[in-house]
Amino acid sequence: MSNQPEWQGMTASQVVAAEVSAIKQMAIRAAGRDNVASLAWGLPSFPTPEPIRSAVAEQLRSDPDIGKYTLPDGLPALRQLAARRHRQEIGMRVDPDRQVMITAGNMQALSTLLHVVLDPGDEVILTDPGFASHYQQIALHLGKPVPWRLLEEKGWQMDIDALPGLVTQRTKAIILVNPANPTGTLHREEELVALADLARQLRLLLILDDPYSAFVYGTDTRIYNPAADPRIADQVAYCFTFSKCFAMSGWRLGYMIIPAWLKAQAMKVHDANMICAPRISQIAGITALSHPSHHLADFRDALSRRRDLILSRLDRLPGSFTYTAPQGAYYVFPKILRRHTDSRAFCMELLDRAGVSLTPGSAFGRAGEGHVRMAYCVDESVINDAFDRMEQYFRD
Amino acid sequence: MSNQPEWQGMTASQVVAAEVSAIKQMAIRAAGRDNVASLAWGLPSFPTPEPIRSAVAEQLRSDPDIGKYTLPDGLPALRQLAARRHRQEIGMRVDPDRQVMITAGNMQALSTLLHVVLDPGDEVILTDPGFASHYQQIALHLGKPVPWRLLEEKGWQMDIDALPGLVTQRTKAIILVNPANPTGTLHREEELVALADLARQLRLLLILDDPYSAFVYGTDTRIYNPAADPRIADQVAYCFTFSKCFAMSGWRLGYMIIPAWLKAQAMKVHDANMICAPRISQIAGITALSHPSHHLADFRDALSRRRDLILSRLDRLPGSFTYTAPQGAYYVFPKILRRHTDSRAFCMELLDRAGVSLTPGSAFGRAGEGHVRMAYCVDESVINDAFDRMEQYFRD
Repeated sequence: MSNQPEWQGMTASQVVAAEVSAIKQMAIRAAGRDNVASLAWGLPSFPTPEPIRSAVAEQLRSDPDIGKYTLPDGLPALRQLAARRHRQEIGMRVDPDRQVMITAGNMQALSTLLHVVLDPGDEVILTDPGFASHYQQIALHLGKPVPWRLLEEKGWQMDIDALPGLVTQRTKAIILVNPANPTGTLHREEELVALADLARQLRLLLILDDPYSAFVYGTDTRIYNPAADPRIADQVAYCFTFSKCFAMSGWRLGYMIIPAWLKAQAMKVHDANMICAPRISQIAGITALSHPSHHLADFRDALSRRRDLILSRLDRLPGSFTYTAPQGAYYVFPKILRRHTDSRAFCMELLDRAGVSLTPGSAFGRAGEGHVRMAYCVDESVINDAFDRMEQYFRD
Repeated sequence: MSNQPEWQGMTASQVVAAEVSAIKQMAIRAAGRDNVASLAWGLPSFPTPEPIRSAVAEQLRSDPDIGKYTLPDGLPALRQLAARRHRQEIGMRVDPDRQVMITAGNMQALSTLLHVVLDPGDEVILTDPGFASHYQQIALHLGKPVPWRLLEEKGWQMDIDALPGLVTQRTKAIILVNPANPTGTLHREEELVALADLARQLRLLLILDDPYSAFVYGTDTRIYNPAADPRIADQVAYCFTFSKCFAMSGWRLGYMIIPAWLKAQAMKVHDANMICAPRISQIAGITALSHPSHHLADFRDALSRRRDLILSRLDRLPGSFTYTAPQGAYYVFPKILRRHTDSRAFCMELLDRAGVSLTPGSAFGRAGEGHVRMAYCVDESVINDAFDRMEQYFRD
């Protein structure tokens, strides 16, 4: 980083302190090498479904307005479809004008929400381990991330009893991802109801970041969404992204279902920082939500097969890892049994010596230390290649 | 805003204090009425050029990765084209890897830069009148916007002599738009050089927000870009947006040319809040920058004709407005000669009684009070309609 200006104040303190996420660091480091088997990046191999791509291609020809701004909260047709999907999924009726906002994906949505609720020094509770970028995002918005340790011995379930002890006068919100990243845990209805009760009593905003709810396997447990609880309707922000379940990560598209008071505030931030989500992506979203999602069964089947594969390969790799079988998303978060300094050094060595890219568990919080995240959303050949290399490497 | 939670701290103070921009307020209010002649929104009538739309439609068929994330700073091919354009436009060579970052438009770029440089209470200097959303964005990032009054009596040129008196130990940056919004002023090379000198001496970051540099009329003066000055290469952030000169506002695409130290910091913020600019828009940008911009002459001719039209209509509207003829962008910022309370009340009355939507000058800073902004990027029929109505209304 050459030529940083001498004036110390040129860069804000919280930015100097931050790091590019370990996930991206590994991706960038791996991109600099040939022939790496990467399980580091949670980006499914699927292309955006053909009907969505065709509809957008067609509209590029026929719609003279396709290149123009929309109003800040997005195209009315997409907001109506989002409201309809919300009703179909969890039975909640919401007003598309007062409660729905189209976003440029969930990270941009969360940035908007954090701008809205955080004064400097305010606190946000999130799971440990939890999604690395949430930790960074809170710090960049001058908040303090408060880790809430999951119970590894209970398959990374929530420790509801520990939650009240983490809340202070500065606590503004709780962020939850379910199924979870990096553990693949499907959180249980019983605990989610208890979580919602606590959020209500403590007047906290419950932020639900939902990239993965379409991906649940190997369980009869139905996924429960706390946004379905009318008692907390006024303090829940449900953030849905098209990235994973419509294979639209690059389109940067999501929607938020939020109470009217919150939308009124979020509009100011979104208008100033984003203007609007990309219109062409909103067009894609309209197709995605107005047609049957036939692709989803295929995605789920493929991911389920890849999950079976990676778990069987883990089982056949003796003395290296132990794990809790994930029930959702497309991650497994094994504990390292081999001798190692820390998870970061372990991953760097594995990349440099075996050409396998994993994400160090420490990127996901202190409770993640001693673990690695493996994303099994890649093709089966990549999973097999990575494990062939690890078998070879650990044998030597 | 119903049901705001009782807990006072739920919404951050700077967000409660902010307003959705007056531009959007007028747009939203006008959208609620039928039959409005609107000169309020700076959104050109042009569709995205056909070659760009065709290339994207084609790639939607052929590129299986079109739906996927890019790395945070964007596709290498687009970064290389941005570097090439920068060299062609102003003769500066930059490293596409270390100094170029693809953004989701200039407002998202500025949000990233403000995150990087502002600690709470830091100051940013910007012109008064100036772009309303910059004022809001600085406040939302916990900074203090410091207005720098332009000289109306000198055609809204910069008051270089007044600048040093505005700088304190907390001043981090200056934001400039040239040609200017809302005045349409083309700032002069002599003053821009002096501005760059001051920024260098005072170690301030000079942020150049460039939506309009392709649109200059009625002058032989060539547009000067301070980013061409190698002496301030280490402290200038040049932000280019495709929105206006490629009619791509809805695609949310831009690029930043920034020093390497700043890119290293900006990557952290961009990765956490945006992940990447939409890939489909990046594909569009590659086509835009790798083909000749034949559309630009057409855009410029049309805007030049519309400028002539609106100025002649202003001249024929007796006793209502006086103005400085704009040399760039597509705004004119007349002073109201008619009796009025303030510019906001004037505009509201004009909307409600005459069905004409203008933007109140007060939205652009204190020096804008007593003025209105008219955007002449709309079809000539809309300009004529608005002035026919105003003629009728002022006569009655």
